[in-house]
Amino acid sequence: MKLKELSQRGGVPIPTIKYYLREGLLPKGDPLGETKADYGDHHLDRLRIIRSLVEIGEVPIAVIRQILAAVDDETVPATVLLATALSALGAGPSSDAAPAGDRTGAESLIAGQGWQVSPGSTAPDQLAAALGALRLVGLPADAAQLAPYTRAALEMAGHQLPLLPDPARREEFAARAVIGAVLYDRLLLALLRLAKENISMRRDGH
Amino acid sequence: MKLKELSQRGGVPIPTIKYYLREGLLPKGDPLGETKADYGDHHLDRLRIIRSLVEIGEVPIAVIRQILAAVDDETVPATVLLATALSALGAGPSSDAAPAGDRTGAESLIAGQGWQVSPGSTAPDQLAAALGALRLVGLPADAAQLAPYTRAALEMAGHQLPLLPDPARREEFAARAVIGAVLYDRLLLALLRLAKENISMRRDGH
Repeated sequence: MKLKELSQRGGVPIPTIKYYLREGLLPKGDPLGETKADYGDHHLDRLRIIRSLVEIGEVPIAVIRQILAAVDDETVPATVLLATALSALGAGPSSDAAPAGDRTGAESLIAGQGWQVSPGSTAPDQLAAALGALRLVGLPADAAQLAPYTRAALEMAGHQLPLLPDPARREEFAARAVIGAVLYDRLLLALLRLAKENISMRRDGH
Repeated sequence: MKLKELSQRGGVPIPTIKYYLREGLLPKGDPLGETKADYGDHHLDRLRIIRSLVEIGEVPIAVIRQILAAVDDETVPATVLLATALSALGAGPSSDAAPAGDRTGAESLIAGQGWQVSPGSTAPDQLAAALGALRLVGLPADAAQLAPYTRAALEMAGHQLPLLPDPARREEFAARAVIGAVLYDRLLLALLRLAKENISMRRDGH
Protein backbone atom coordinates (compact mmCIF):
# COMPACT_ATOMS: atom_id res chain seq x y z
CA MET A 1 0.00 0.00 0.00
CA LYS A 2 1.04 3.61 -0.43
CA LEU A 3 1.74 6.06 2.39
CA LYS A 4 -1.73 7.59 2.08
CA GLU A 5 -3.45 4.23 2.56
CA LEU A 6 -1.14 3.35 5.46
CA SER A 7 -2.11 6.65 7.07
CA GLN A 8 -5.84 6.05 6.58
CA ARG A 9 -5.85 2.43 7.73
CA GLY A 10 -3.53 3.09 10.67
CA GLY A 11 -5.37 6.22 11.77
CA VAL A 12 -2.11 8.19 11.89
CA PRO A 13 -1.50 11.42 9.90
CA ILE A 14 1.15 11.28 7.13
CA PRO A 15 3.54 13.79 8.80
CA THR A 16 3.49 11.65 11.96
CA ILE A 17 4.29 8.51 9.95
CA LYS A 18 7.18 10.37 8.30
CA TYR A 19 8.42 11.30 11.75
CA TYR A 20 8.29 7.64 12.88
CA LEU A 21 10.20 6.66 9.71
CA ARG A 22 12.90 9.28 10.36
CA GLU A 23 13.16 8.20 14.01
CA GLY A 24 13.56 4.56 12.96
CA LEU A 25 10.45 3.37 14.82
CA LEU A 26 8.88 2.24 11.57
CA PRO A 27 11.04 0.40 8.98
CA LYS A 28 11.27 1.99 5.52
CA GLY A 29 8.94 0.67 2.81
CA ASP A 30 10.09 -0.96 -0.44
CA PRO A 31 11.11 1.87 -2.79
CA LEU A 32 8.72 2.59 -5.70
CA GLY A 33 10.74 5.04 -7.79
CA GLU A 34 12.48 8.07 -6.30
CA THR A 35 9.96 9.46 -3.84
CA LYS A 36 7.40 6.71 -3.22
CA ALA A 37 7.49 3.48 -1.28
CA ASP A 38 5.31 0.44 -0.80
CA TYR A 39 4.19 -0.55 2.72
CA GLY A 40 2.98 -3.97 3.84
CA ASP A 41 0.80 -5.34 6.61
CA HIS A 42 3.83 -5.46 8.88
CA HIS A 43 4.09 -1.66 8.64
CA LEU A 44 0.42 -1.35 9.48
CA ASP A 45 0.75 -3.67 12.52
CA ARG A 46 3.73 -1.76 13.80
CA LEU A 47 2.06 1.60 13.19
CA ARG A 48 -0.95 0.49 15.24
CA ILE A 49 1.36 -0.67 18.02
CA ILE A 50 3.27 2.63 18.08
CA ARG A 51 -0.01 4.51 18.11
CA SER A 52 -1.39 2.60 21.07
CA LEU A 53 1.90 3.01 23.00
CA VAL A 54 1.83 6.78 22.35
CA GLU A 55 -1.87 7.46 22.81
CA ILE A 56 -2.96 4.97 25.44
CA GLY A 57 0.29 4.13 27.22
CA GLU A 58 1.58 7.75 26.91
CA VAL A 59 5.02 6.19 26.42
CA PRO A 60 7.70 8.67 25.24
CA ILE A 61 9.06 8.14 21.69
CA ALA A 62 12.62 7.55 22.96
CA VAL A 63 11.33 4.72 25.15
CA ILE A 64 9.34 3.20 22.28
CA ARG A 65 12.51 3.26 20.18
CA GLN A 66 14.39 1.26 22.83
CA ILE A 67 11.59 -1.30 23.13
CA LEU A 68 11.27 -1.77 19.35
CA ALA A 69 15.04 -2.18 19.00
CA ALA A 70 14.86 -5.13 21.42
CA VAL A 71 11.81 -6.48 19.54
CA ASP A 72 13.73 -6.38 16.24
CA ASP A 73 16.84 -8.03 17.68
CA GLU A 74 15.88 -11.70 17.37
CA THR A 75 18.85 -12.74 19.52
CA VAL A 76 17.11 -11.21 22.55
CA PRO A 77 15.12 -14.00 24.27
CA ALA A 78 11.52 -13.39 25.35
CA THR A 79 12.35 -13.07 29.06
CA VAL A 80 15.02 -10.45 28.38
CA LEU A 81 12.65 -8.72 25.94
CA LEU A 82 10.07 -8.45 28.72
CA ALA A 83 12.64 -7.12 31.20
CA THR A 84 14.01 -4.68 28.60
CA ALA A 85 10.55 -3.37 27.79
CA LEU A 86 9.71 -2.90 31.48
CA SER A 87 13.17 -1.40 32.19
CA ALA A 88 12.69 1.10 29.35
CA LEU A 89 9.51 2.29 31.05
CA GLY A 90 11.72 3.06 34.04
CA ALA A 91 10.68 4.30 37.43
CA GLY A 92 9.93 7.91 36.64
CA PRO A 93 12.25 10.86 37.22
CA SER A 94 15.41 10.61 39.28
CA SER A 95 17.35 13.82 39.84
CA ASP A 96 21.06 14.21 40.58
CA ALA A 97 20.04 15.26 44.09
CA ALA A 98 18.39 11.85 44.66
CA PRO A 99 19.74 10.05 47.74
CA ALA A 100 22.11 7.11 47.31
CA GLY A 101 20.30 3.84 46.72
CA ASP A 102 20.36 1.00 49.22
CA ARG A 103 21.96 -1.65 46.97
CA THR A 104 22.60 -4.08 49.80
CA GLY A 105 19.02 -3.82 51.03
CA ALA A 106 17.67 -4.40 47.51
CA GLU A 107 19.90 -7.43 46.94
CA SER A 108 19.01 -8.96 50.27
CA LEU A 109 15.28 -8.42 49.69
CA ILE A 110 15.49 -10.04 46.24
CA ALA A 111 17.59 -12.95 47.57
CA GLY A 112 15.22 -13.35 50.54
CA GLN A 113 12.33 -13.80 48.09
CA GLY A 114 14.40 -16.19 45.96
CA TRP A 115 13.58 -14.05 42.95
CA GLN A 116 15.41 -14.44 39.62
CA VAL A 117 16.39 -11.16 37.97
CA SER A 118 16.72 -10.86 34.21
CA PRO A 119 20.11 -9.83 32.74
CA GLY A 120 20.12 -6.09 31.99
CA SER A 121 17.19 -5.36 34.31
CA THR A 122 17.14 -1.98 36.03
CA ALA A 123 14.44 -3.06 38.51
CA PRO A 124 17.00 -3.75 41.31
CA ASP A 125 18.28 -0.15 40.91
CA GLN A 126 14.74 1.16 41.21
CA LEU A 127 14.20 -0.93 44.31
CA ALA A 128 17.53 0.25 45.78
CA ALA A 129 16.60 3.90 45.12
CA ALA A 130 13.21 3.53 46.81
CA LEU A 131 14.70 1.70 49.82
CA GLY A 132 17.49 4.30 50.22
CA ALA A 133 14.99 7.16 50.14
CA LEU A 134 12.63 5.44 52.62
CA ARG A 135 15.51 4.89 55.02
CA LEU A 136 16.62 8.51 54.65
CA VAL A 137 13.22 9.87 55.70
CA GLY A 138 12.88 7.29 58.46
CA LEU A 139 10.02 5.29 56.93
CA PRO A 140 10.09 1.54 57.66
CA ALA A 141 11.57 -0.57 54.88
CA ASP A 142 12.80 -3.81 56.45
CA ALA A 143 11.76 -7.19 55.05
CA ALA A 144 8.99 -7.74 57.64
CA GLN A 145 7.45 -4.30 56.99
CA LEU A 146 7.64 -4.88 53.24
CA ALA A 147 5.96 -8.30 53.34
CA PRO A 148 2.53 -6.93 52.24
CA TYR A 149 4.19 -5.21 49.28
CA THR A 150 6.10 -8.26 48.04
CA ARG A 151 2.98 -10.40 48.49
CA ALA A 152 0.85 -7.94 46.53
CA ALA A 153 3.51 -7.63 43.80
CA LEU A 154 3.67 -11.41 43.31
CA GLU A 155 -0.09 -11.73 43.21
CA MET A 156 -0.52 -8.91 40.68
CA ALA A 157 2.37 -10.16 38.52
CA GLY A 158 0.75 -13.60 38.48
CA HIS A 159 -2.44 -11.92 37.33
CA GLN A 160 -0.87 -9.79 34.57
CA LEU A 161 1.59 -12.18 32.91
CA PRO A 162 -0.97 -14.75 31.70
CA LEU A 163 -2.68 -11.91 29.79
CA LEU A 164 0.34 -11.63 27.46
CA PRO A 165 0.24 -13.16 23.96
CA ASP A 166 2.68 -15.81 22.69
CA PRO A 167 6.25 -14.39 23.09
CA ALA A 168 7.00 -15.60 19.53
CA ARG A 169 4.85 -12.65 18.40
CA ARG A 170 7.59 -10.39 19.75
CA GLU A 171 6.15 -7.04 18.72
CA GLU A 172 2.73 -7.67 20.15
CA PHE A 173 4.17 -9.41 23.22
CA ALA A 174 6.38 -6.41 24.12
CA ALA A 175 3.68 -3.85 23.36
CA ARG A 176 1.07 -5.66 25.48
CA ALA A 177 3.58 -6.06 28.32
CA VAL A 178 4.28 -2.30 28.27
CA ILE A 179 0.67 -1.16 27.93
CA GLY A 180 -0.50 -3.65 30.54
CA ALA A 181 2.21 -2.46 32.95
CA VAL A 182 1.41 1.23 32.39
CA LEU A 183 -2.35 0.82 32.75
CA TYR A 184 -2.44 -1.64 35.65
CA ASP A 185 0.17 0.49 37.47
CA ARG A 186 -2.08 3.52 37.07
CA LEU A 187 -5.11 1.54 38.17
CA LEU A 188 -3.28 0.26 41.24
CA LEU A 189 -2.05 3.72 42.29
CA ALA A 190 -5.58 5.16 41.86
CA LEU A 191 -7.03 2.34 43.99
CA LEU A 192 -4.31 2.85 46.60
CA ARG A 193 -5.20 6.55 46.87
CA LEU A 194 -8.90 5.73 47.13
CA ALA A 195 -8.22 3.14 49.82
CA LYS A 196 -6.25 5.72 51.83
CA GLU A 197 -9.00 8.31 51.47
CA ASN A 198 -11.57 5.74 52.53
CA ILE A 199 -9.66 4.76 55.69
CA SER A 200 -9.01 8.41 56.52
CA MET A 201 -12.68 9.40 55.98
CA ARG A 202 -13.95 6.55 58.17
CA ARG A 203 -11.50 7.42 60.91
CA ASP A 204 -12.86 10.98 60.89
CA GLY A 205 -16.36 9.53 61.39
CA HIS A 206 -17.85 10.24 57.95
CA MET B 1 17.68 34.31 62.37
CA LYS B 2 18.97 36.02 59.24
CA LEU B 3 18.72 34.59 55.74
CA LYS B 4 22.32 33.35 55.87
CA GLU B 5 21.69 31.32 59.01
CA LEU B 6 18.41 29.96 57.62
CA SER B 7 20.34 28.82 54.55
CA GLN B 8 23.06 27.13 56.62
CA ARG B 9 20.73 25.41 59.06
CA GLY B 10 18.25 24.36 56.37
CA GLY B 11 20.95 23.15 53.97
CA VAL B 12 19.44 25.19 51.14
CA PRO B 13 21.40 27.86 49.15
CA ILE B 14 20.28 31.51 49.56
CA PRO B 15 19.19 31.92 45.88
CA THR B 16 16.96 28.84 46.25
CA ILE B 17 15.40 30.25 49.43
CA LYS B 18 14.75 33.54 47.60
CA TYR B 19 13.06 31.55 44.85
CA TYR B 20 10.82 29.77 47.39
CA LEU B 21 9.95 33.18 48.95
CA ARG B 22 9.04 34.63 45.52
CA GLU B 23 6.96 31.54 44.69
CA GLY B 24 5.07 31.84 47.98
CA LEU B 25 6.18 28.41 49.25
CA LEU B 26 7.93 30.01 52.20
CA PRO B 27 6.23 32.89 54.08
CA LYS B 28 8.12 36.18 54.24
CA GLY B 29 10.19 36.90 57.36
CA ASP B 30 9.59 39.81 59.74
CA PRO B 31 11.14 42.88 58.09
CA LEU B 32 14.38 44.18 59.64
CA GLY B 33 14.88 47.49 57.86
CA GLU B 34 14.61 47.85 54.08
CA THR B 35 16.41 44.77 52.74
CA LYS B 36 16.70 42.34 55.64
CA ALA B 37 14.22 40.10 57.41
CA ASP B 38 14.12 37.88 60.46
CA TYR B 39 13.21 34.21 60.10
CA GLY B 40 11.94 31.90 62.85
CA ASP B 41 11.89 28.16 63.53
CA HIS B 42 8.69 27.89 61.53
CA HIS B 43 10.59 29.03 58.42
CA LEU B 44 13.29 26.46 59.12
CA ASP B 45 10.73 23.65 59.54
CA ARG B 46 8.99 24.59 56.33
CA LEU B 47 12.28 24.92 54.46
CA ARG B 48 13.26 21.40 55.52
CA ILE B 49 9.88 20.09 54.41
CA ILE B 50 10.14 21.78 51.00
CA ARG B 51 13.67 20.43 50.62
CA SER B 52 12.65 16.84 51.36
CA LEU B 53 9.67 17.10 48.98
CA VAL B 54 11.95 18.40 46.22
CA GLU B 55 14.99 16.21 46.77
CA ILE B 56 13.57 12.95 48.01
CA GLY B 57 10.01 13.01 46.74
CA GLU B 58 11.05 14.75 43.48
CA VAL B 59 7.75 16.61 43.73
CA PRO B 60 7.40 19.55 41.25
CA ILE B 61 7.36 23.06 42.79
CA ALA B 62 3.84 23.77 41.42
CA VAL B 63 2.56 20.67 43.21
CA ILE B 64 4.30 21.65 46.47
CA ARG B 65 2.64 25.08 46.22
CA GLN B 66 -0.81 23.46 45.99
CA ILE B 67 -0.11 21.19 48.95
CA LEU B 68 1.23 24.01 51.14
CA ALA B 69 -1.78 26.21 50.28
CA ALA B 70 -4.05 23.47 51.69
CA VAL B 71 -1.77 23.14 54.73
CA ASP B 72 -2.02 26.89 55.42
CA ASP B 73 -5.80 26.98 55.02
CA GLU B 74 -6.90 25.92 58.51
CA THR B 75 -10.51 25.50 57.33
CA VAL B 76 -9.41 22.42 55.34
CA PRO B 77 -9.99 19.36 57.58
CA ALA B 78 -7.27 16.70 57.89
CA THR B 79 -9.03 14.16 55.65
CA VAL B 80 -9.46 16.69 52.87
CA LEU B 81 -5.85 17.83 53.41
CA LEU B 82 -4.72 14.25 52.87
CA ALA B 83 -6.86 13.85 49.75
CA THR B 84 -5.71 17.24 48.42
CA ALA B 85 -2.05 16.36 48.95
CA LEU B 86 -2.47 13.00 47.22
CA SER B 87 -4.58 14.56 44.43
CA ALA B 88 -1.89 17.19 43.82
CA LEU B 89 0.58 14.36 43.21
CA GLY B 90 -1.77 13.26 40.46
CA ALA B 91 -1.52 10.19 38.33
CA GLY B 92 1.23 11.21 35.96
CA PRO B 93 0.81 12.62 32.47
CA SER B 94 -2.49 12.59 30.62
CA SER B 95 -2.48 13.82 27.04
CA ASP B 96 -5.38 15.28 25.07
CA ALA B 97 -5.33 12.10 23.01
CA ALA B 98 -6.07 10.00 26.12
CA PRO B 99 -9.14 7.80 25.73
CA ALA B 100 -12.37 8.77 27.48
CA GLY B 101 -12.50 7.60 31.09
CA ASP B 102 -14.93 4.96 32.28
CA ARG B 103 -16.76 7.06 34.89
CA THR B 104 -19.55 4.55 35.37
CA GLY B 105 -17.07 1.70 35.88
CA ALA B 106 -15.11 3.75 38.42
CA GLU B 107 -18.22 4.74 40.36
CA SER B 108 -19.55 1.20 40.44
CA LEU B 109 -16.16 -0.17 41.59
CA ILE B 110 -15.97 2.42 44.40
CA ALA B 111 -19.59 1.80 45.42
CA GLY B 112 -19.03 -1.98 45.28
CA GLN B 113 -16.18 -1.60 47.75
CA GLY B 114 -18.27 0.71 49.92
CA TRP B 115 -15.43 3.22 49.83
CA GLN B 116 -15.87 6.83 51.00
CA VAL B 117 -14.29 9.41 48.69
CA SER B 118 -13.04 12.74 50.01
CA PRO B 119 -14.59 15.95 48.62
CA GLY B 120 -12.36 17.38 45.88
CA SER B 121 -10.54 14.10 45.30
CA THR B 122 -9.31 13.40 41.77
CA ALA B 123 -8.70 9.71 42.51
CA PRO B 124 -12.03 8.62 40.92
CA ASP B 125 -10.96 10.41 37.69
CA GLN B 126 -7.64 8.58 37.73
CA LEU B 127 -9.45 5.30 38.25
CA ALA B 128 -11.91 6.11 35.44
CA ALA B 129 -9.03 6.96 33.08
CA ALA B 130 -7.21 3.69 33.83
CA LEU B 131 -10.41 1.62 33.45
CA GLY B 132 -11.32 3.34 30.16
CA ALA B 133 -7.85 2.69 28.73
CA LEU B 134 -7.83 -0.96 29.86
CA ARG B 135 -11.19 -1.52 28.21
CA LEU B 136 -10.00 0.16 25.01
CA VAL B 137 -7.04 -2.21 24.64
CA GLY B 138 -9.14 -5.22 25.65
CA LEU B 139 -7.44 -5.88 28.98
CA PRO B 140 -9.76 -7.27 31.69
CA ALA B 141 -11.03 -4.67 34.15
CA ASP B 142 -14.24 -6.01 35.66
CA ALA B 143 -14.74 -6.16 39.43
CA ALA B 144 -13.82 -9.87 39.71
CA GLN B 145 -10.58 -9.39 37.74
CA LEU B 146 -9.68 -6.36 39.82
CA ALA B 147 -10.23 -8.08 43.18
CA PRO B 148 -6.48 -8.70 43.75
CA TYR B 149 -5.79 -5.00 43.10
CA THR B 150 -8.43 -3.65 45.47
CA ARG B 151 -7.33 -6.14 48.14
CA ALA B 152 -3.68 -5.11 47.75
CA ALA B 153 -4.60 -1.41 47.78
CA LEU B 154 -6.55 -1.75 51.03
CA GLU B 155 -3.78 -3.73 52.68
CA MET B 156 -1.06 -1.26 51.68
CA ALA B 157 -3.17 1.76 52.63
CA GLY B 158 -3.73 0.18 56.05
CA HIS B 159 0.03 -0.19 56.33
CA GLN B 160 0.91 3.36 55.27
CA LEU B 161 -1.66 5.50 57.08
CA PRO B 162 -0.63 4.59 60.64
CA LEU B 163 2.87 5.88 59.80
CA LEU B 164 1.52 9.44 59.53
CA PRO B 165 2.02 11.93 62.37
CA ASP B 166 -0.81 13.68 64.23
CA PRO B 167 -2.96 15.54 61.62
CA ALA B 168 -2.90 18.58 63.94
CA ARG B 169 0.71 19.04 62.79
CA ARG B 170 -0.67 19.88 59.37
CA GLU B 171 2.58 20.70 57.60
CA GLU B 172 4.38 17.55 58.70
CA PHE B 173 1.26 15.43 58.22
CA ALA B 174 0.83 16.51 54.59
CA ALA B 175 4.54 16.25 53.79
CA ARG B 176 4.83 12.74 55.26
CA ALA B 177 1.68 11.65 53.41
CA VAL B 178 3.15 12.88 50.12
CA ILE B 179 6.66 11.51 50.62
CA GLY B 180 5.31 8.19 51.91
CA ALA B 181 3.00 7.92 48.89
CA VAL B 182 5.77 8.75 46.40
CA LEU B 183 8.32 6.37 47.92
CA TYR B 184 6.06 3.41 48.67
CA ASP B 185 4.51 3.76 45.18
CA ARG B 186 8.01 3.55 43.68
CA LEU B 187 8.89 0.62 45.88
CA LEU B 188 5.71 -1.21 44.90
CA LEU B 189 6.22 -0.66 41.16
CA ALA B 190 9.85 -1.87 41.42
CA LEU B 191 8.71 -5.00 43.29
CA LEU B 192 5.96 -5.59 40.74
CA ARG B 193 8.52 -5.48 37.90
CA LEU B 194 10.84 -7.82 39.77
CA ALA B 195 7.97 -10.24 40.44
CA LYS B 196 7.12 -10.27 36.72
CA GLU B 197 10.74 -10.87 35.74
CA ASN B 198 10.96 -13.67 38.28
CA ILE B 199 7.85 -15.45 36.99
CA SER B 200 8.99 -15.00 33.39
CA MET B 201 12.53 -16.30 34.12
CA ARG B 202 11.19 -19.37 35.92
CA ARG B 203 8.81 -20.12 33.09
CA ASP B 204 11.75 -20.07 30.70
CA GLY B 205 13.51 -22.65 32.87
CA HIS B 206 16.24 -20.45 34.38
